[in-house]
Amino acid sequence: MVLLLECGLVRPTTSGFFTLLPLARRALDKLENLIKTCIESSGAQRLSLPALTSAGLWAKTGRLENAAAELLTLEDRHNKKYLLAPTYEEAIAELLSDLKPISYKQLPIILYQISNKYRDELRPKHGLLRAREFSMLDAYGAHASSDCALQVYGRMATAYEHLFRALHLKVHKVEAPSGDMGGSFSHEWQLAATSGEDQIKVCPSCSHAALLNDEGTRCQSCGKDAEILQSIEVGHTFILGTKYSEALEATYCPPSGPPLPIIMSCYGIGITRLLAASLEALSTEKALRWPKAIAPYSAIIIGPKEGSKEWNDHGMDQVKLVYDALNSVPALRSDVLVDDRHGLTIGKRLLMADKMGYPIVIACGKESSSNPPRYEVTIDGATQLCTAQELVQILSDKYAHLEYCT
Amino acid sequence: MVLLLECGLVRPTTSGFFTLLPLARRALDKLENLIKTCIESSGAQRLSLPALTSAGLWAKTGRLENAAAELLTLEDRHNKKYLLAPTYEEAIAELLSDLKPISYKQLPIILYQISNKYRDELRPKHGLLRAREFSMLDAYGAHASSDCALQVYGRMATAYEHLFRALHLKVHKVEAPSGDMGGSFSHEWQLAATSGEDQIKVCPSCSHAALLNDEGTRCQSCGKDAEILQSIEVGHTFILGTKYSEALEATYCPPSGPPLPIIMSCYGIGITRLLAASLEALSTEKALRWPKAIAPYSAIIIGPKEGSKEWNDHGMDQVKLVYDALNSVPALRSDVLVDDRHGLTIGKRLLMADKMGYPIVIACGKESSSNPPRYEVTIDGATQLCTAQELVQILSDKYAHLEYCT
Repeated sequence: MVLLLECGLVRPTTSGFFTLLPLARRALDKLENLIKTCIESSGAQRLSLPALTSAGLWAKTGRLENAAAELLTLEDRHNKKYLLAPTYEEAIAELLSDLKPISYKQLPIILYQISNKYRDELRPKHGLLRAREFSMLDAYGAHASSDCALQVYGRMATAYEHLFRALHLKVHKVEAPSGDMGGSFSHEWQLAATSGEDQIKVCPSCSHAALLNDEGTRCQSCGKDAEILQSIEVGHTFILGTKYSEALEATYCPPSGPPLPIIMSCYGIGITRLLAASLEALSTEKALRWPKAIAPYSAIIIGPKEGSKEWNDHGMDQVKLVYDALNSVPALRSDVLVDDRHGLTIGKRLLMADKMGYPIVIACGKESSSNPPRYEVTIDGATQLCTAQELVQILSDKYAHLEYCT
Repeated sequence: MVLLLECGLVRPTTSGFFTLLPLARRALDKLENLIKTCIESSGAQRLSLPALTSAGLWAKTGRLENAAAELLTLEDRHNKKYLLAPTYEEAIAELLSDLKPISYKQLPIILYQISNKYRDELRPKHGLLRAREFSMLDAYGAHASSDCALQVYGRMATAYEHLFRALHLKVHKVEAPSGDMGGSFSHEWQLAATSGEDQIKVCPSCSHAALLNDEGTRCQSCGKDAEILQSIEVGHTFILGTKYSEALEATYCPPSGPPLPIIMSCYGIGITRLLAASLEALSTEKALRWPKAIAPYSAIIIGPKEGSKEWNDHGMDQVKLVYDALNSVPALRSDVLVDDRHGLTIGKRLLMADKMGYPIVIACGKESSSNPPRYEVTIDGATQLCTAQELVQILSDKYAHLEYCT
């Protein structure tokens, strides 16, 4: 979190609330778009429910009382009570009920949101990892049978795996208790990170992963010694059964007989949390490292220092030339930043760029005055001198097989 | 609003709050992305401030009291008071103050958000046109001089004009009072719509537009008779001056002398309101019409009715063929919907497609069993029979000169 502050990515406003400054917001845009692509590939359709949910709706499932301490609640000018939703099982069940009659032929339906959620944490901490307002994916499956629910659950798990693979993050799917949510079973999605507050055991032999509990450190699947890792929960998925659909009369019409309660499943990913957790997992104490797919910019170009020989030779001309060259690589289009703080030395700005963790850093140093001009190009930590033409070739090759989430 | 309900686009939850169902949400995604492109072309950078703003911050500018009736407020578990922000002048001024020292060399800065805003309307009405939770663009300029503020104001006005042109909407920029916001001057952006609650007068001779007030119906600019139009306010822009920066000590360092208060400007567009207003302006009582750039899907394909001759001949094969053909047109990729309600006649589904207002409707009717198969293609209301190859040619030509907002 200190690095996020130092790098000008976030600012706290009051306890547990954060402003995402432009670079962080840009990374979040990329992450949200990647999540949309992955989740929609499973057939999910986006919708938006109001953040203000009628408190009466939550009273019907008993959660208004059970979750009261962590709910932010308010009254409107007519003294009607609302809560700022942390999750939407009730609201989705009410919507399904409102859409009656739903035929079994119309199921399954998968609906999702990407929106801000609210939780009045007793002690907000670790910055974006436990904020009171946070961006979250929440998806809901509506099914006519348990078998169908399990099929959709499998499809959504595949979408999660695609997402984490696209981010090059090692996220472990572990069985978990369903807790206050109810339902028959659930999985947490845990990202290994030394600063994490959770603990999981991962078997090096059979890859089975589980929450670390009092059943010891052996793998429950193959019996071998498991590895213990600190981790951060970035997602949670549930088969909910009929808890919410029964309470809110969300039914479907089967081929024959009376309407039956819809079987529900739900799927969450803490998006701002995932952003922060991936930085926790990949960065060092001194420098940020991003999953490449969500780095605020893929490349930064550092121009010569004002008054230097290079500045007098070509000013910003070489910067513009490199900028155009990079933008000619389709994968980098509109994703290149120019560091125009000419008052600072190249060395100082190189240190700042390294700290921020841009995947590609290009400095117009001494050799930019040679013929042909050559630039100091650092890709994934390795530096080389190359011409604009060589640079385009290297990057075109590098991004030729871009891993998309499909 | 009735049509929006009938077409399954929105559902009210409680008074003034709406669920955007998948088709409406998809249109909103398109509109938000278009707004991002237009606004960023003016140099604006996106950020996200928390929706929960400390009430104390608004007390400092006097707006906590002045706007109290329309503010949704709450207390957290520690009895700290917050409001759900309808707008962010205070929060932006606090952020600028927090980023001190800002040099005049760093200005102007333009920051923007796309997020949900809140207003506790006394009588929410007209559906999305006056909701209590709504998606809104809010942008803020920080300037070192009035001249610079005016320059940025002009740039943002150009971005607005690009946006409305991309939507093919006739939006009039009219001088307006600054009201509670303060500042030196402002403009409203008014979309002509017979159902609108505002009135503007537009001069047919010199195109000057103004709010209709007691200064009569003559053009204030050229003196000729002006036309009176009903209209809907979709945007509002202000030069704010130093009201907020003085109250919250947001200063910059000029070339010499002590720090000075930053001159601010701000820019709003009600995004869900614009979506609804554009439908109000373009639709009839019986059928929705969308700005093409934000129709939920550009095209819909209607397959044969189950049991018909065509169904028995080729089932869904022709639908798949047309689907692939449409997706081969770059502008239509991933923007084509298949109406697979085989139980309904083609005629009934054509009526529904017309009511929903898809720009391109393709029916696999009787001629889809001919050799070569031909489809009933309706583009902008005109119907013709064509083969898949002809269809691709027509649409490739139609979309060859797509108007982007750049």
